[in-house]
Amino acid sequence: MPVVSQRGRNMPPSPVRKLAPFADAAKARGVEILHLNIGQPDLESPPAFWDAVRGSTLKTLEYGHASGLAELREEMAAYYRSIGISVDAAQVLVCTAGSEALNFALSACLEPGSEVIVPEPFYANYIGFATWFDGKVVPVPTRIEDDFALPSTQEFEARITPRTRAILINNPGNPTGTVFADRQLEELAELCASKDLWLISDEVYRDFNFSGRPIRSILQLDGLGDAGIMVDSVSKRYSLCGARVGFLVSRHADFNDATARLAMARLSPPTLEQLGVVAALRDTKPEYFEGLRAEYRSRKDLLVERLRAISGAVCPEIEGAFYAMVRLPIDDSDRFCQWLLEEFDHEGATVMLAPGTGFYATTGSGRDEVRIAYVLGKDRLIRAMDALEAALAVYPGAKVPTA
Amino acid sequence: MPVVSQRGRNMPPSPVRKLAPFADAAKARGVEILHLNIGQPDLESPPAFWDAVRGSTLKTLEYGHASGLAELREEMAAYYRSIGISVDAAQVLVCTAGSEALNFALSACLEPGSEVIVPEPFYANYIGFATWFDGKVVPVPTRIEDDFALPSTQEFEARITPRTRAILINNPGNPTGTVFADRQLEELAELCASKDLWLISDEVYRDFNFSGRPIRSILQLDGLGDAGIMVDSVSKRYSLCGARVGFLVSRHADFNDATARLAMARLSPPTLEQLGVVAALRDTKPEYFEGLRAEYRSRKDLLVERLRAISGAVCPEIEGAFYAMVRLPIDDSDRFCQWLLEEFDHEGATVMLAPGTGFYATTGSGRDEVRIAYVLGKDRLIRAMDALEAALAVYPGAKVPTA
Repeated sequence: MPVVSQRGRNMPPSPVRKLAPFADAAKARGVEILHLNIGQPDLESPPAFWDAVRGSTLKTLEYGHASGLAELREEMAAYYRSIGISVDAAQVLVCTAGSEALNFALSACLEPGSEVIVPEPFYANYIGFATWFDGKVVPVPTRIEDDFALPSTQEFEARITPRTRAILINNPGNPTGTVFADRQLEELAELCASKDLWLISDEVYRDFNFSGRPIRSILQLDGLGDAGIMVDSVSKRYSLCGARVGFLVSRHADFNDATARLAMARLSPPTLEQLGVVAALRDTKPEYFEGLRAEYRSRKDLLVERLRAISGAVCPEIEGAFYAMVRLPIDDSDRFCQWLLEEFDHEGATVMLAPGTGFYATTGSGRDEVRIAYVLGKDRLIRAMDALEAALAVYPGAKVPTA
Repeated sequence: MPVVSQRGRNMPPSPVRKLAPFADAAKARGVEILHLNIGQPDLESPPAFWDAVRGSTLKTLEYGHASGLAELREEMAAYYRSIGISVDAAQVLVCTAGSEALNFALSACLEPGSEVIVPEPFYANYIGFATWFDGKVVPVPTRIEDDFALPSTQEFEARITPRTRAILINNPGNPTGTVFADRQLEELAELCASKDLWLISDEVYRDFNFSGRPIRSILQLDGLGDAGIMVDSVSKRYSLCGARVGFLVSRHADFNDATARLAMARLSPPTLEQLGVVAALRDTKPEYFEGLRAEYRSRKDLLVERLRAISGAVCPEIEGAFYAMVRLPIDDSDRFCQWLLEEFDHEGATVMLAPGTGFYATTGSGRDEVRIAYVLGKDRLIRAMDALEAALAVYPGAKVPTA
C-alpha cells in the first residue's frame, strides 16, 4: 500500500477546527455551543453583496479570469489608493480568500527546507502553509506578561540563517491583537532589504483597530523596495468568510508573474462572490465600518473586563483584530477545550474555544492559553463568559490560584 | 532584492489562459472571439442551482465545514452509490473545484523530487500541480496517428523508478477524448498495487461519454486496495465552472486524514455554491444529462466532419469529454494561436484555440497540434470552423500539403 507524503503526514490539524467533531456531538446531545473558537463574525454581510448575488441574471456560471475579474481588481486598487497605498489593478491578484493568498505568497517565496520567521503566537495556519511547501516556521517568541509586545528587530535578525527566505507578520495580529508601530515596521523593512528577504504582511484585520494609531501597510514603507507582499481578504471586513474572496498585492514584477501562473493552474476564484464584492466595494458607506468598529470595541471592553475578573486568568491589552489570547488557570488547553464540549454545560450551553498550543511553533508554549474570538453579540458574549467562569470552577484540571 | 522560489519560476503558464491578453486586445479592436480554447460549457447551469442561490435567506455568509457541508457530502455519496461506486460521506472531501482536489491529491502523494506518470498529451495543469509540490510529470507518449490509443501497461511499468509515487489518468481524457477500457484499468490497478503506487483518476468528464462503453471508476476496481483516488467536479457536468465546487474521493484512511488537514489550512470551500449544488443534485432529472450528451455528441460529429475536410489536418476518433486534439498544417501552434488573435479575422470574428505544446511534457511534441473545446452551439461552431478554414488559407506559417 502506498504511503502519504511527508508533507501530508506533517500537516498540522487546525487548532480551530479539529474540535469540530466534539462540537457536533455536543449539539446532537442538545447542548448549545457558544462559538468563541473561530473568527467567524456574526454581523450581517453588506446588503449590496446580497443584492448583487440574488439579483444576478447569469444563466451559466462561468470561469472568471485566473487573476480575478477586471472590475474587482480595479475597485480594490482604487480602495487601496484611497487609504494611501499606491498600487494599480495589475498588482492586485484576486485569490480564493486570504488563505489562498497566503498559500501563493509562501509558494513563491519558500524553497523546500527553507524558513520563514514569524512572531509567536501567530495565526495557526501559517505553519500549515509553510508545511504545504516543505518549509519551516521559525518563531520569535513574545510573552503574555508583556501584552505580547512585538519582538525587537534584533530578535528577528538573530534568527536569520542562510535558509531564511521571508519574515511574515500579521498586523493587526491574530491571536494577540497587537498593532505594529511605524518604527517597528520601518526597522523590519530595513532588515529585510539588507538581507534580501521578503516581508509578507497579513493585513486582513485592518478595519479592526482600537490602538489609536493608524495601521501602516507594508506597501507604504520606504526602504523595502519591491520586497513587500500584502495579504488581504473580505472575510472579516465584510463578514464574508464563506465567500472565499481575498487578495495578494505586490509591486514585485517577478513575484506577480509567478503568482499569476500559480493562479492559472487553479483556473479562477468563485465568480459570483467576486461580483458581489464589487457591489459591496461600490456601495458600502464609511458608517458601515464605524458601526463595526464601535461594536467590536464594546465587545472587547466587555470581554477584557470579564476575563480580568477571573481569578488566575491573564488577559493582555488588545489593540486590534477581534481575538484575545488569554492565560487560564488550567493544566492543558487542548484537554480543557475538549472537556468543555464533551463533559460540560452551564444552563444548557457551553463555550467552544481554540486551544493555545496551535498558535505556537515552540513545543510546550500555549498549554495554559486559549484564543477567544469575540464574534458574538453582547448578550451571548455575557452568557459565554458566565459559562467559562462556571467551567473553571468545576474543571478537574483547574489550577488552584496560589495567591 | 529577494528572488522568487524555484517552484514559482518553474510554474508553467496555462496554455489555455496565457493568450488571454491577446484576446482582450482583439475584443478591444471590435473582433468577436469564438472561444474554443477553454472547457467552459455554454449550456445553462441547472435551474435548481440558481433557485437555491437566488432564494437564499442567509444574512451572514459564513465559513462552512473545512471538509464541505455535511448535506453535500451525503448527497454526493448517494450519487456515487447510484452509479455503482461504494463510498460513504466521510470518504468524500468537498474541494474548491477539481483544481483543488488535484492539488490536494498530489500534495498528499508526492515528495519533492518525486515523479507521477501520466499518459501524454494530458490536461496541462497536471504539470502545474506537480510543480506546485516540487514533483515531476513523467509522460507516457501516445500518438495522434493511433487516435491517441492509451499506452500499454508495459509502457507505464517501464517508466517506474524509485522516485515514482503515482500514476495519474484522466478518464474520459482531456484533451484526447479517450475512454479507458476495463481491462486497461484493471491492469493499471494491478501494476499500482504490486509497486505500492497511488492510482489517481480524474473523472470530471464522466457524463460526456460517446464510446458506447460505460465509464469505470477507479474506485470500482478490485485489486487496487485503497490506493485509488478519484478527482471529481461539478464544473463540466452542471456547467458550473465558476462555482468552484469539486470532490476528492478515496477509501484510504491515512490519505483522507492528510487531505482533511490540508483542507483545514484553507478553511472552507465557497458556502453558497455548495448549497446550490445540493439543490442541483436533488432536483436535476436524468433527462438533463441525456440532453447534454445528445447536444455534445452532435457538436462532436459536426466538428470531426469539418476538421477532416481540412487538407493536411488530422482529427482522431473522439470517445468522450468535449475536446478534440487536432493536427493542423501549421509551423508552430503557439505562433498560430497568437496570430489568430493578433492579425486575423473572418467576417469580424476569429477563433481562440489552445496551443498543443502545453499538453505535453515532452519538448517539441504538440507543435503542430491544437486543442479545440467544442463548447459552442452549432451555429457558432460552424462559424468557428469557417474562420479556422479561412485562417489556414492565409496563415503565413501554413504548411503546403505534400500530397
